[in-house]
Amino acid sequence: MAAPVPPLGSTRQAELYRAGIAGQKPPFPIVFEDLVRAAQERMTPEAFTYVAGGAGGGDTIRANRAAFDRWRIVPRFLRDVSQRDLRVNLLGQTLPAPVLLAPVGVQGIIHKEGDLATARAAKALGLPMVVSTVSSHSIEDLAAALGETPRWFQLYWPADRDLALSFVRRAEQAGYTALMVTLDTIMLGWREGDLQNAYLPFLHGEGMANHTSDPVFKKALLLPPAVNPISSMAHFLKVAFNPKLTWDDIAFLKQNTQLPILLKGILDPDDARKAVDFGMAGLIVSNHGGRQLDGAIAALDALPRIADAVGDQLTLLFDSGIRRGSDIFKALALGARAVLVGRPYCYGLALGGEEGVKFVLHNLLADFDITLGLAGCASAAEVTRERLHMI
Amino acid sequence: MAAPVPPLGSTRQAELYRAGIAGQKPPFPIVFEDLVRAAQERMTPEAFTYVAGGAGGGDTIRANRAAFDRWRIVPRFLRDVSQRDLRVNLLGQTLPAPVLLAPVGVQGIIHKEGDLATARAAKALGLPMVVSTVSSHSIEDLAAALGETPRWFQLYWPADRDLALSFVRRAEQAGYTALMVTLDTIMLGWREGDLQNAYLPFLHGEGMANHTSDPVFKKALLLPPAVNPISSMAHFLKVAFNPKLTWDDIAFLKQNTQLPILLKGILDPDDARKAVDFGMAGLIVSNHGGRQLDGAIAALDALPRIADAVGDQLTLLFDSGIRRGSDIFKALALGARAVLVGRPYCYGLALGGEEGVKFVLHNLLADFDITLGLAGCASAAEVTRERLHMI
Amino acid sequence: MAAPVPPLGSTRQAELYRAGIAGQKPPFPIVFEDLVRAAQERMTPEAFTYVAGGAGGGDTIRANRAAFDRWRIVPRFLRDVSQRDLRVNLLGQTLPAPVLLAPVGVQGIIHKEGDLATARAAKALGLPMVVSTVSSHSIEDLAAALGETPRWFQLYWPADRDLALSFVRRAEQAGYTALMVTLDTIMLGWREGDLQNAYLPFLHGEGMANHTSDPVFKKALLLPPAVNPISSMAHFLKVAFNPKLTWDDIAFLKQNTQLPILLKGILDPDDARKAVDFGMAGLIVSNHGGRQLDGAIAALDALPRIADAVGDQLTLLFDSGIRRGSDIFKALALGARAVLVGRPYCYGLALGGEEGVKFVLHNLLADFDITLGLAGCASAAEVTRERLHMI
Amino acid sequence: MAAPVPPLGSTRQAELYRAGIAGQKPPFPIVFEDLVRAAQERMTPEAFTYVAGGAGGGDTIRANRAAFDRWRIVPRFLRDVSQRDLRVNLLGQTLPAPVLLAPVGVQGIIHKEGDLATARAAKALGLPMVVSTVSSHSIEDLAAALGETPRWFQLYWPADRDLALSFVRRAEQAGYTALMVTLDTIMLGWREGDLQNAYLPFLHGEGMANHTSDPVFKKALLLPPAVNPISSMAHFLKVAFNPKLTWDDIAFLKQNTQLPILLKGILDPDDARKAVDFGMAGLIVSNHGGRQLDGAIAALDALPRIADAVGDQLTLLFDSGIRRGSDIFKALALGARAVLVGRPYCYGLALGGEEGVKFVLHNLLADFDITLGLAGCASAAEVTRERLHMI
Repeated sequence: MAAPVPPLGSTRQAELYRAGIAGQKPPFPIVFEDLVRAAQERMTPEAFTYVAGGAGGGDTIRANRAAFDRWRIVPRFLRDVSQRDLRVNLLGQTLPAPVLLAPVGVQGIIHKEGDLATARAAKALGLPMVVSTVSSHSIEDLAAALGETPRWFQLYWPADRDLALSFVRRAEQAGYTALMVTLDTIMLGWREGDLQNAYLPFLHGEGMANHTSDPVFKKALLLPPAVNPISSMAHFLKVAFNPKLTWDDIAFLKQNTQLPILLKGILDPDDARKAVDFGMAGLIVSNHGGRQLDGAIAALDALPRIADAVGDQLTLLFDSGIRRGSDIFKALALGARAVLVGRPYCYGLALGGEEGVKFVLHNLLADFDITLGLAGCASAAEVTRERLHMI
Repeated sequence: MAAPVPPLGSTRQAELYRAGIAGQKPPFPIVFEDLVRAAQERMTPEAFTYVAGGAGGGDTIRANRAAFDRWRIVPRFLRDVSQRDLRVNLLGQTLPAPVLLAPVGVQGIIHKEGDLATARAAKALGLPMVVSTVSSHSIEDLAAALGETPRWFQLYWPADRDLALSFVRRAEQAGYTALMVTLDTIMLGWREGDLQNAYLPFLHGEGMANHTSDPVFKKALLLPPAVNPISSMAHFLKVAFNPKLTWDDIAFLKQNTQLPILLKGILDPDDARKAVDFGMAGLIVSNHGGRQLDGAIAALDALPRIADAVGDQLTLLFDSGIRRGSDIFKALALGARAVLVGRPYCYGLALGGEEGVKFVLHNLLADFDITLGLAGCASAAEVTRERLHMI
Repeated sequence: MAAPVPPLGSTRQAELYRAGIAGQKPPFPIVFEDLVRAAQERMTPEAFTYVAGGAGGGDTIRANRAAFDRWRIVPRFLRDVSQRDLRVNLLGQTLPAPVLLAPVGVQGIIHKEGDLATARAAKALGLPMVVSTVSSHSIEDLAAALGETPRWFQLYWPADRDLALSFVRRAEQAGYTALMVTLDTIMLGWREGDLQNAYLPFLHGEGMANHTSDPVFKKALLLPPAVNPISSMAHFLKVAFNPKLTWDDIAFLKQNTQLPILLKGILDPDDARKAVDFGMAGLIVSNHGGRQLDGAIAALDALPRIADAVGDQLTLLFDSGIRRGSDIFKALALGARAVLVGRPYCYGLALGGEEGVKFVLHNLLADFDITLGLAGCASAAEVTRERLHMI
Repeated sequence: MAAPVPPLGSTRQAELYRAGIAGQKPPFPIVFEDLVRAAQERMTPEAFTYVAGGAGGGDTIRANRAAFDRWRIVPRFLRDVSQRDLRVNLLGQTLPAPVLLAPVGVQGIIHKEGDLATARAAKALGLPMVVSTVSSHSIEDLAAALGETPRWFQLYWPADRDLALSFVRRAEQAGYTALMVTLDTIMLGWREGDLQNAYLPFLHGEGMANHTSDPVFKKALLLPPAVNPISSMAHFLKVAFNPKLTWDDIAFLKQNTQLPILLKGILDPDDARKAVDFGMAGLIVSNHGGRQLDGAIAALDALPRIADAVGDQLTLLFDSGIRRGSDIFKALALGARAVLVGRPYCYGLALGGEEGVKFVLHNLLADFDITLGLAGCASAAEVTRERLHMI
């Protein structure tokens, strides 16, 4: 599937530096903090707060970053790292790098092309995209845009098993190769910024592409979506969140699909052990980028505890707070096989659509590639906990 | 008494987000820091400093918040949390949520209706109100405003046992169901901000409603309060603080009332053990919101030490620094049965009287409810120390 | 000598609050940070930097304060603290409170009356003053101003034993009751701010009152000071610093005076043990307020280590970073018998001469008195390490 | 070679303070942070970012400084420190102070005279200069400028062994006495600031003096540098970085030179042990001033771990983050024999060429000398780990 990627870092640097000789500055900011500011200027205040904000006053977001600061990389030298192999094998697929595009819904509020632009960028880079249940384009349309690029489907399990199964079937048929069940959204987090703005994208009809195109969903409506969008929205909100979700549902899903299932949001070692018992293919250690549980443990602080508990029994991924190559490195060192990146590419999307997403992710891969080499690792597999020092 | 409360969080969110569709932003700030700023703009500088300020230069206030940051919530998932029971049983009473309105005196400097507006908000929400000795309306008037809502009386033990007993008797007769003796105000804290403003509400006649309406207090005056307010104030100041208070007084009080007694301000495990010996019904681990002892231990840092010492022998409450739902969660996890909230509702009071108090407390309950669910707890009783990780 | 001081805190508060009723704000800032800013506005930039600044870029100053933040006070309650005894016995003298005016030289750059104003304030409050070798008025003049108030002499040991002895003899004759030998000024600290300003008070003739009035010093000059001030200055600089100072000198001093000797600047437990061997009466744990050794250990971090080593064998004092009453409390709890306060009174001096010094110190004592009471201690002797919790 | 240096500190202070009497402020800022700001104003934004910036968003730079803050100096007193011997013996040479000028390339972007000015300043102070492979003047020209002053050659090992050997031979012939092989630049760090500016000095022809003057390098070109500078640049970029570098290359170098070899960039104790096995003369514990590996361990945090592993088996130097005298002291105490200073002198260079470099280094030595004395050490050899306390 994905071809081996040549060392990206130096090539990317050369590209950017050489442009400078011709008087060309990069089209978008490279310094992460500048990227955020630029995106903020481009987006509506409501959309920016929705994307960048988090639960409560942002405490979990801050905790996520602070955790990265406490772990420091201890490089080794004088090993031939000229051929760095960024590839990782994930559930039988070879990825060009240990990076997936995190599922981000309602991308239509970020850019008019929404996740279609994101999918095109993912395809261009060969990076797997995890398509959100509340994507701005349908499972099928995004699959078409992704072509041969690996794609996973992220399931916000609705309060209607038939609808859940319908989503799963559509994903199976559209060539998605794994299911990622998000656990931490059984209800919406208390997001002070969004509440202050009284802004929820779904109430503006965003993020419902998979629902309004779904036969099960449509059957539950009195009037077809095209005739009465309000009816769709009301039903969407009725089924969107499911605080009754239990391990029984997970068992049910497992019985009803051949796709590997990963649970996203696990932060407790006991939950991780239970996931092993239920035959899960993997876990995503994540606090939803600080968007859901205010005051939550930093995802990176949870990672080694979960790796210690179950790290060799299923595939561990990491999500929440990845901003730079060194963050990827640290997550791998603490037990993750790969990471999910969310907000960074959204800022790229805001600024330049497909080009913006590519720009941000290309830089991130280049940064990670260089981090890998400078840390003395010729491949992601060489990134172990010995390479870290905690302060 | 208090009816079971349906899950508040999602309902409250829906209310706020739906208003947005109609173009309505919330009437008051939801982001806590914005709430404080807005209240500051509305209040006189002197009143704001009195309410928001603390001992010394605010060091204890900062320590209170820093302690919350060190404890992180470790959520569990895939448990049915659709029916969250926020109720707690406290001294034989069932509260709708583990939240009490902390005793705050002189609310007349915050809003013209003072604690009468607060009492009406407490009644509307069914939350117990702890009425302050230096309330801006009398024990009896607040009882009337509270109706069936649980009410406790907070006693600043005056330097006159007869007056203390008179307050207690009035509270008993007005249907108060517990006495909360504040220990940390035997003298007034050294509050640099207030001293700079040379502002003490009592010297402006605020907070004397219970005194000027008290037969014992009036008998001690040469002239009735109406005739000579200065005489009242002088006597008030003479009896208001009592640095001679000892455990003997506590024993005396216990002999003279059937009401359960709770001690507020305990921070030392030895004091907590002594409270058990003296038959106290409960303790409030508190540093008075940082208003009294500059440099004091953060109340949250003291809580687990006290819970370890006496947690199963009496009712532990927590006070000092609660701002958001996750703070309530952390205090419960560290051993508190319920928490007291003070300044947040005062800022609501400043901005909107009864409506403002309701707005702030309603949001806080919704926030806590969502925190509970997202942490995988279906009730306050499920919030244990295992749900926390210290960094 | 010093009379017992009645509880100061409440009285002082009442004074300040009552003035507010008459529309009078305090004459000087009470909030410490505001006090510093106000003093900065009044002083020349050079003088302010000299007084407020420290070694290097101020790192040791910051470390001093950070150390206080890590220690938190755990109060006890329900003990009669109505009669607080702030007195401490120090080398046979009873002080009204565990506070001494730290030796601060060249006060003439702060206020035209210099340390004469400070001495008058010390006398008014009954607090001992430690007179600096480089005071702006002579040993004898300050003794006269202090009257019955206890006074100690701080010795910057000059590179001339005869001059050192001459200073000691003058101090003995002028009724000074202890000698405080400062160890950490054998050379001047590298103070970037002062070097940037190219400002050293001594080069402007400040701080030489004791030298130009000294027979030994004058004998060494070719011309009397009045005739040739430059000659005085040159000789002053030649003898002012003495990097050859060793324990032998300390033994020599001990043989040559009956006064108790205290060593100021001790931060290492081994040095402290040696001081015991050399018969020292006491130690001042101090890093010279961060003015000398850049990067030094916070004085408060050194204090318990030294108290553990020698605390019961001589009198321990603390200096460096005391700003508020809680700081005094923490220093006592960690083993100091009393503290020295320096910069705070200098800011008062800058703003209001004698009145300013009195204002600042009076507030500090009141603040400490209240801290004592609110921590449940009726006397300084009750302030033990059990009253602290380290975070 | 280098003569013993008299105590610099007091002399330097006197010089600066006395100038103040004549109304002369120092020609350049002394406060380090002001120095940086002033240099920033003088340099182009691109050059300043290149010099002051680091990998990623500067995280490693911040970590370097934070590590210094955690170690505090515990001074001892009453030892004769009037004759402080700053000299250290390094690989058979006596240095006037434990300070070397770190190899900094492309100094031509900082000042028109580039490292020629730096070399003159090094000579004036007698401090060894480590000449960079990418210096702005050639190995030979800098040797001439340095005269008798010790000089080492820093080798960025090119992807061409012949070129590497050619550099080594030229260094040997030009009187360089040690080789410092930098390990952490096998590829260029991901520097967001520089990438944003699309600015790399080499692409502007900077830093190629050693290459364009090298017979091996020139032979590889189709056209001589003077005729076709683009050709030189292309070849330079082709050979500049060598991610294939391994311990075999180190062994090869050792076989091909009599000069002692030091490895720069070691942060891992295992690498350090290997260096011993390969007969290295020394190590420089360094993270390249935070310019290379984003998220790296602070160099100072790595130092004691490496000193514990191999400290007595070879010469340990420290580099990365030295800004003040106390930093030098801490590095020595944690096991370094001497330190390398980079950016500080570059800021001096920006502001005043040779004079600026001298100014900055002279002050740094004075600061260190005073730190030494005030910490109670009469020589660098007395600076041991016992003089530090970690918080």
